[in-house]
Amino acid sequence: MPTRAPIEFYFEFASPYGYLASTQIDDVAARYQREVIWKPIMLGAALKRTGQLPTVQIPIKGDYLKHDIQRFARLLDVPLRLPPVMPMNSLAASRAYWWLFERDRCLAKKFARGIFHAHWGEGRDLSAPEAVAEIAARLGISPEDLLAAVQQPAIKQRLRDETERSIEKGVFGSPFIIVDGEGFWGADRLDQVERWLATGGW
Amino acid sequence: MPTRAPIEFYFEFASPYGYLASTQIDDVAARYQREVIWKPIMLGAALKRTGQLPTVQIPIKGDYLKHDIQRFARLLDVPLRLPPVMPMNSLAASRAYWWLFERDRCLAKKFARGIFHAHWGEGRDLSAPEAVAEIAARLGISPEDLLAAVQQPAIKQRLRDETERSIEKGVFGSPFIIVDGEGFWGADRLDQVERWLATGGW
Repeated sequence: MPTRAPIEFYFEFASPYGYLASTQIDDVAARYQREVIWKPIMLGAALKRTGQLPTVQIPIKGDYLKHDIQRFARLLDVPLRLPPVMPMNSLAASRAYWWLFERDRCLAKKFARGIFHAHWGEGRDLSAPEAVAEIAARLGISPEDLLAAVQQPAIKQRLRDETERSIEKGVFGSPFIIVDGEGFWGADRLDQVERWLATGGW
Repeated sequence: MPTRAPIEFYFEFASPYGYLASTQIDDVAARYQREVIWKPIMLGAALKRTGQLPTVQIPIKGDYLKHDIQRFARLLDVPLRLPPVMPMNSLAASRAYWWLFERDRCLAKKFARGIFHAHWGEGRDLSAPEAVAEIAARLGISPEDLLAAVQQPAIKQRLRDETERSIEKGVFGSPFIIVDGEGFWGADRLDQVERWLATGGW
């Protein structure tokens, strides 16, 4: 049984590096008997606070990103297909996650994996709540319940609160991983996350 | 003898991740019998083109950078002391590099290592041409010659040309490493650079 605080995995569903890290983080943590709590946020709020644009919209850098994520995915041997809309609107998916999280954390994580796979592995646009509900339905989650939930004021507020708390913790990009109070930004910091877990810091 | 094109190592002297990569890149390349050409540029020009700010000036992200580079340096076991000015003005250092490059590429690389070490290893501000000349003097380079060289129109133009050509090649950040036409951005891509050199791509 893990005795230490879970690893916090902050991400934005519309972030390809969030997707890439999501395919690795639980395996990394498991090697050190650590649990991972997945925390989707609306990265747009953090970008606004820091005056940044979504990377894909930045000239030159956006082109690099499209090339880099495909190369990175091949290295990790995970599927990646560029979605038609980047960044997609992840509001429905993120709200649905936090709704599920309160009912069943394991199911919520399965749902998040399903969203990531459909969006980045298969290149589907999941901006519409109905598209999100379709992914959820494969896990036995009622589409009607989900579509109602993502309109609930309490669920909307939960996502706002989680996003605000993440910014207070220093999250400004996706993925952002916090291990025992130490923050690591980027899918390319997973080796340092693993080293931190193995050594307790350096 | 290397038979393939040299690896291109683009960097900005004022970039801490450029410094971190500079302590590793030649060792990585040597394991695959490859040469590295160091190419300092004025990153400000690329940032202007892409509408970005120097990372250290971005709220929240700038604080992360200061923490991350010190942690990264400890991991690599290289010295790092935050300079009083970030980013410093690297114009004199970059011009001096290209002046030396035309005379003696090995000496130019030694000079670049000296600049990086003094700025990031010892935390010194090298914005003033006189401070740059002092580093150069330790390598037997005449301070008078250097101070005259960095004012020569041809040297000024050379740095502008190198910067412009780098942007045309897709460089938007520091470090940016090009291996056989494949670009990798960031000190945290050195493992992928090494893998690319070992396998010829994936």
